[in-house]
Amino acid sequence: VGGRYFVAIGGPCAVESREQTLFVARRVKASGAHVLRGGAFKPRTNPYSFQGLGEEGLKILAEARAETGLPFVTEALDLEGLELVERYADAIQIGARNMQNFPLLRAAGQARKPVMLKRGFQATLEELLLAAEYVLAGGNFDVVLCERGIRTFSDFSRNTLDLGLVPAAKALTHLPVIVDPSHASGRRDLVVPLSRAAAAVGGDGIMVEVHGDPGCALCDGTQAVTTEAFSTLVTEVGRVADAVDRPLLQPETRRRKVAVGQFF
Amino acid sequence: VGGRYFVAIGGPCAVESREQTLFVARRVKASGAHVLRGGAFKPRTNPYSFQGLGEEGLKILAEARAETGLPFVTEALDLEGLELVERYADAIQIGARNMQNFPLLRAAGQARKPVMLKRGFQATLEELLLAAEYVLAGGNFDVVLCERGIRTFSDFSRNTLDLGLVPAAKALTHLPVIVDPSHASGRRDLVVPLSRAAAAVGGDGIMVEVHGDPGCALCDGTQAVTTEAFSTLVTEVGRVADAVDRPLLQPETRRRKVAVGQFF
Amino acid sequence: VGGRYFVAIGGPCAVESREQTLFVARRVKASGAHVLRGGAFKPRTNPYSFQGLGEEGLKILAEARAETGLPFVTEALDLEGLELVERYADAIQIGARNMQNFPLLRAAGQARKPVMLKRGFQATLEELLLAAEYVLAGGNFDVVLCERGIRTFSDFSRNTLDLGLVPAAKALTHLPVIVDPSHASGRRDLVVPLSRAAAAVGGDGIMVEVHGDPGCALCDGTQAVTTEAFSTLVTEVGRVADAVDRPLLQPETRRRKVAVGQFF
Amino acid sequence: VGGRYFVAIGGPCAVESREQTLFVARRVKASGAHVLRGGAFKPRTNPYSFQGLGEEGLKILAEARAETGLPFVTEALDLEGLELVERYADAIQIGARNMQNFPLLRAAGQARKPVMLKRGFQATLEELLLAAEYVLAGGNFDVVLCERGIRTFSDFSRNTLDLGLVPAAKALTHLPVIVDPSHASGRRDLVVPLSRAAAAVGGDGIMVEVHGDPGCALCDGTQAVTTEAFSTLVTEVGRVADAVDRPLLQPETRRRKVAVGQFF
Repeated sequence: VGGRYFVAIGGPCAVESREQTLFVARRVKASGAHVLRGGAFKPRTNPYSFQGLGEEGLKILAEARAETGLPFVTEALDLEGLELVERYADAIQIGARNMQNFPLLRAAGQARKPVMLKRGFQATLEELLLAAEYVLAGGNFDVVLCERGIRTFSDFSRNTLDLGLVPAAKALTHLPVIVDPSHASGRRDLVVPLSRAAAAVGGDGIMVEVHGDPGCALCDGTQAVTTEAFSTLVTEVGRVADAVDRPLLQPETRRRKVAVGQFF
Repeated sequence: VGGRYFVAIGGPCAVESREQTLFVARRVKASGAHVLRGGAFKPRTNPYSFQGLGEEGLKILAEARAETGLPFVTEALDLEGLELVERYADAIQIGARNMQNFPLLRAAGQARKPVMLKRGFQATLEELLLAAEYVLAGGNFDVVLCERGIRTFSDFSRNTLDLGLVPAAKALTHLPVIVDPSHASGRRDLVVPLSRAAAAVGGDGIMVEVHGDPGCALCDGTQAVTTEAFSTLVTEVGRVADAVDRPLLQPETRRRKVAVGQFF
Repeated sequence: VGGRYFVAIGGPCAVESREQTLFVARRVKASGAHVLRGGAFKPRTNPYSFQGLGEEGLKILAEARAETGLPFVTEALDLEGLELVERYADAIQIGARNMQNFPLLRAAGQARKPVMLKRGFQATLEELLLAAEYVLAGGNFDVVLCERGIRTFSDFSRNTLDLGLVPAAKALTHLPVIVDPSHASGRRDLVVPLSRAAAAVGGDGIMVEVHGDPGCALCDGTQAVTTEAFSTLVTEVGRVADAVDRPLLQPETRRRKVAVGQFF
Repeated sequence: VGGRYFVAIGGPCAVESREQTLFVARRVKASGAHVLRGGAFKPRTNPYSFQGLGEEGLKILAEARAETGLPFVTEALDLEGLELVERYADAIQIGARNMQNFPLLRAAGQARKPVMLKRGFQATLEELLLAAEYVLAGGNFDVVLCERGIRTFSDFSRNTLDLGLVPAAKALTHLPVIVDPSHASGRRDLVVPLSRAAAAVGGDGIMVEVHGDPGCALCDGTQAVTTEAFSTLVTEVGRVADAVDRPLLQPETRRRKVAVGQFF
């Protein structure tokens, strides 16, 4: 992430079962995406909501990687989870609600896997960069920033995607910046146009929620696109990425240049 | 605006003088833009700031149109100004601060020129559509919506461009939606990437502030791009617009299809 | 407003009829309030909502004043309405949506009646003071500022009352500052506690919507308190006002010191 | 907290040294406050800022309690810190940045000390109540909510104190709600008026930052009041609290009714 090529990351919000995850992983792979995402530990506003499969979910993701060759990124919520995620995953996600969880950031700075740091939905650019600094200060220089929408009064979408952050961050730091249009909008029908915009504005990649049957998702179903829609999305984003000279990494190119686990 | 082609609108924030306006108009035309913008009546937060040239400014814009062939759009602040703008201009702009100036909207509904209605920086999508309804209810059906950024806590840019509004509005209405990245960001360096994103997200056009010498602008100089930068901008936006099958209207096409005054 | 005493303003959102207005006016007077409010010209988001009775409403308010002795304040939406309001009313209200309607502010600067300027729900303190400057610059020095809530993500109330603005504005200007808890909250049950807080924070008065039968109000019924609740409100606010040495003006005091029309 | 009496909590943002803490604790006690606050573990946006004295700070706070008789509340940032805080302190603070740190909330639900849960500066009321539910679901029913301002565009203060939350939360839950005007405003001159407003709106207490020499504070000096100002503050707040029938707990009353450690 952050080189010449634009990167597409897709997968379910939450790992719900082996079947669901393998199904989505195969389709995400077939669509031309480069990385699998999926949550094993889920931060949920409501204590009674589905909280994720935990280590079992990590094993399912590892199995999906073995089958498809796609590296995966998944979120860690606390120090204990971080150790597990570091062991299984190819990259560690720090979620928006934990962007200022400073003990967790410090621990991520000690990890030997890349860190994808999501902007808090209430965070300024300066706060995001200082949160990244917590990780960098620990000696882990592989940090990818992720814009995922901010909380505003605008109420047609769940959050407001702040795409100007991409060029603004790049003017201040060398860190790659990707975009999550799924959490930003909370609306399936906005995910494709916002993904195209993420490529056009100069982002280094997108991370999109994909579900085999969004209506039955245990988490955030209204924002997940179907596997068919994801395939169209990758095609459309690819055209825009070409237009801004940041083409999608192609399968054959990838095989030559990037080994699993070195993707980030 | 709103047909098959993507439309580029450029010009100075304020009409400052005949020389400045003609200079910019010629360059905007040469860059491939389709419409000239420029303010004769300026709504200023501070009562002691430059307030615009008034009718004299409208005459200068009309002269620039006569020379370049570019139709122009300019803002009306009150009922008296609306009459003048309707007489001189090709389209009437209702600014963000007046999006809920209901007497002005009603009067615009009686006008026989297209209306470009800017979203208030505090307005929800529903409020924007209801403001448009004030104009439509008066019998004027030529309304173009314009997203120009909303006020949020995010402080690296002046406002936060809410690009998801473009597809969200198009899901609810047939009205064209254009994007103003200049007021949204307040930063010259963000105008080009956000313009590309506006094309990628499915917008019908962009409106950009251009100044011959931004450092000396009487109004909003920090967000105006130079005439050279505007030329690059149109080229880059054109590539993205092609990638989403909404190409820029080309001069030769335009000559055949669109007469001055029928552009909107 | 702005002297030693705390001022209570009450009345219906909109003047709906002679009966409704006189009923509320008598009760507001009996509760110990000092000024009547009521809208004859209503700025409505939806063009098909009730828009007010116009000049007929002003005549009803004048009749209520004649009967109760309460001066009244009412909103003007445009230049034509401003002339009428100046003729009939004791004070001119400029509403939140018009806080940056600069032609209207200039005209209010020429009026010979006090101006109550409501903070736009998107306006910073600086913008509010500069809007007041438009009125002051015209030679009208009787300006009262009104905090009425700002638009935020917080969704339990319609807007978020920004009470810190009261002392912050008073540190920068000599203008009185009153508080409108009705529009700020949009919830009847929050109006009494927020009115007490407005007195405690150092405000110069409150403006509250009161309706004889809130369930049948043509406008903003959910935020209007009943006439009984308003009476309790004035009593409770009076106790807090005493505790901060800004007692409510009492009827007998008032009779001696303030003639109708000189209240502001 | 949450009974008939209004509670005043004061103390330094951070425990910087034994001398500073004891000095402030004595003055806070003399002013009539009921609880001491002070941070041993500090969540800091910038990794290079002062991060607190850790366990050493807890020991200093315990010494201040031994001398003054004031129970103390202090923040825990992670699971390890939570154990220490539970061992030393009388109540555990969960800070605004950790309001959705779900593993920490779960652990606090297992603790045998009261929990003061601060509203995230981006959190809705519903999210705050669901965060409290994480603690309650663990079996710890002693939860006190704390409104400390939300992030908005309003820029004269650091955050915007959302006082309507106090009655709105009380309509939905039996949990006590206190107010932190120091973090909300970030401005010393707003702390006294907002504290009075917190009492008037129906809050159960206030928590205020106090420093012997604010100009030299290692953390948030601009919002700390001097010990002299705090004394005035308690007096003024006491008058308002009386006016709303929620008097401050007096020393003699306290001695009879509340033992150290049972305060919450």
